[in-house]
Amino acid sequence: MSSEFIIVHAGAGAYSNKKRTQATTAIRLACQIAVEALKNGCDCMEAVVKAIMSMEDNPHTNCGTGSNLNQHGYVSCDAGLMRSTDNLCASIGDCRVAKNPIQICEKLLLSQHKLSPLGLQPPCFLVHDGVKDFMEQHALPTYPPEKLITETSLRTYRHWKERRVEIEKHMFSDTVGAICIDRYGNMAIACSSGGNILKHQGRIGPSALPGCGFWIEGSSDKSMCASTVTGSGELIIRTQFASSVCQSLLDSSEEWSSLKELTRNVQHHHTNKYVADPMVGSIFTKLERLGKANVLVTFGYAHTSPGMVLGYMKGNSSKATVITSELNNLDTVTNVFAFKANSG
Amino acid sequence: MSSEFIIVHAGAGAYSNKKRTQATTAIRLACQIAVEALKNGCDCMEAVVKAIMSMEDNPHTNCGTGSNLNQHGYVSCDAGLMRSTDNLCASIGDCRVAKNPIQICEKLLLSQHKLSPLGLQPPCFLVHDGVKDFMEQHALPTYPPEKLITETSLRTYRHWKERRVEIEKHMFSDTVGAICIDRYGNMAIACSSGGNILKHQGRIGPSALPGCGFWIEGSSDKSMCASTVTGSGELIIRTQFASSVCQSLLDSSEEWSSLKELTRNVQHHHTNKYVADPMVGSIFTKLERLGKANVLVTFGYAHTSPGMVLGYMKGNSSKATVITSELNNLDTVTNVFAFKANSG
Repeated sequence: MSSEFIIVHAGAGAYSNKKRTQATTAIRLACQIAVEALKNGCDCMEAVVKAIMSMEDNPHTNCGTGSNLNQHGYVSCDAGLMRSTDNLCASIGDCRVAKNPIQICEKLLLSQHKLSPLGLQPPCFLVHDGVKDFMEQHALPTYPPEKLITETSLRTYRHWKERRVEIEKHMFSDTVGAICIDRYGNMAIACSSGGNILKHQGRIGPSALPGCGFWIEGSSDKSMCASTVTGSGELIIRTQFASSVCQSLLDSSEEWSSLKELTRNVQHHHTNKYVADPMVGSIFTKLERLGKANVLVTFGYAHTSPGMVLGYMKGNSSKATVITSELNNLDTVTNVFAFKANSG
Repeated sequence: MSSEFIIVHAGAGAYSNKKRTQATTAIRLACQIAVEALKNGCDCMEAVVKAIMSMEDNPHTNCGTGSNLNQHGYVSCDAGLMRSTDNLCASIGDCRVAKNPIQICEKLLLSQHKLSPLGLQPPCFLVHDGVKDFMEQHALPTYPPEKLITETSLRTYRHWKERRVEIEKHMFSDTVGAICIDRYGNMAIACSSGGNILKHQGRIGPSALPGCGFWIEGSSDKSMCASTVTGSGELIIRTQFASSVCQSLLDSSEEWSSLKELTRNVQHHHTNKYVADPMVGSIFTKLERLGKANVLVTFGYAHTSPGMVLGYMKGNSSKATVITSELNNLDTVTNVFAFKANSG
């Protein structure tokens, strides 16, 4: 079999039956879109962007349309993208006018290839009106901010705005993320988030921050690892969670135990006393070269949240495998899988 | 002697005689202000913030007043702050209305101690109008943006705006950064930057990004390391340079060789083909517990830029030691110093 692979998560949080069904549907679709794109010759970045775009267009996930509203009642999105072929990354934060924030990251990543004739350095991280400017310069249509607001997100906003008690404990951290491998054994990673409900205006969360919300480490000729994470954003930033996951998995052949130890350490990090209800979750994919055209792909997830919904699909599968993971009496749930494939 | 210590840099770049004299004066003052603050009972964070504020107020450094102007001709500042006592960090990006961006980071860091009665998570990273909002909420006076523009920065802006050729090669990466240790052996780190001249509106640079522009790693009861970096911003982001410096120094007792190897790797990173004129510089401070009240402080710097100006001062010194380091025929300049002290 070929190395084509996609893994997608819909966030760490407490899933109701309804929410779980919605997440499952969104993940299945995202996986199918990515695998179809890979089969049609798209590379890993194009495929992972298409997967995340479908999640952003889904009104039930906290990214793009249907995102949580901030304290002023509007949508402010963060997104990040990175790929292994050239180690470039791109991020946008506090974006209020993009239908698909991850698509802007794709353009921003590609624009880094072209050194300006004026000698100006192309940026890799833009926020707010800088994103809008960039979109206009690249003829990407800006989107009416009110169209990103759904009836449900507005109702939820009003509900909490009036009550304003124990929001964190009821919060749903349904940031989305995905990692994709193409037939050449290249990797791309993407994540997208509307952030916390009633968040401070201009708050940037980990989904826009390389090393925090997403990261790829290693080299394509030996071993490399990608991870994207979800949960309590400020805790993720303070622990550089995504790059820590990659490093610990690259340093260890015991993925299960190193992922478990690291996730537990983050959950018990001494700054979590400043977090109302600390919880984190991660997905990862590790690729090791076994020979010229053979690779070992190890992938998995870990979470300390009551629930996490994720799915994966290989290039030769007819449908995605979706996992609803629940915490029960454990303090960390970890699961690791692996398969061997051809690449190149 | 006590562990009180400050190290300050004024950026990696190509220093003219005039620029070097200006940087030396700014660094001497910043060191003196920090040491005086430490002697008057300030902790490491208060002292490092005062040091950086004096650099921000200096019109000759690229932070606060006198910062580079962006493509639209205004000042847009990034700053970051972190401390070892509780591992909290705070960042602001694209701030247009603060006289002293690092002071806003200090308030933002301290505000993370108070979980909102509404259950809302206090943010650790704010941008643009979110910073302005935060300042108003905390009764911090906003500053007229035009007051941050000096005659020199306006002249420089107009010069390059008209010419628009080979800007990078003439660019001065005079981001500033500082690391401070107080009598208790606690550490704080701060950095502040106006970013590249003619930068894209809303571009966020590494000085606002934990792990990229600044980082503290380790634990106060064993060994910990702080590093803040300067140079080609996008290269620093892609290599997570600050956290890489900390990790490599904590893992190694050969600070000189590990710092040299890492800096060379970053300079030769395969993404540097997307950087017009790649150059980086770093300062670091490492603190190791030798006994209950004894510490070993190792500090130093490395750069691949033509020049770097930095200075340091111990609590028992009467004046700062300022170093103008030049590259000459080497590809990396590295220097490491150490002293033993009492703390606590």
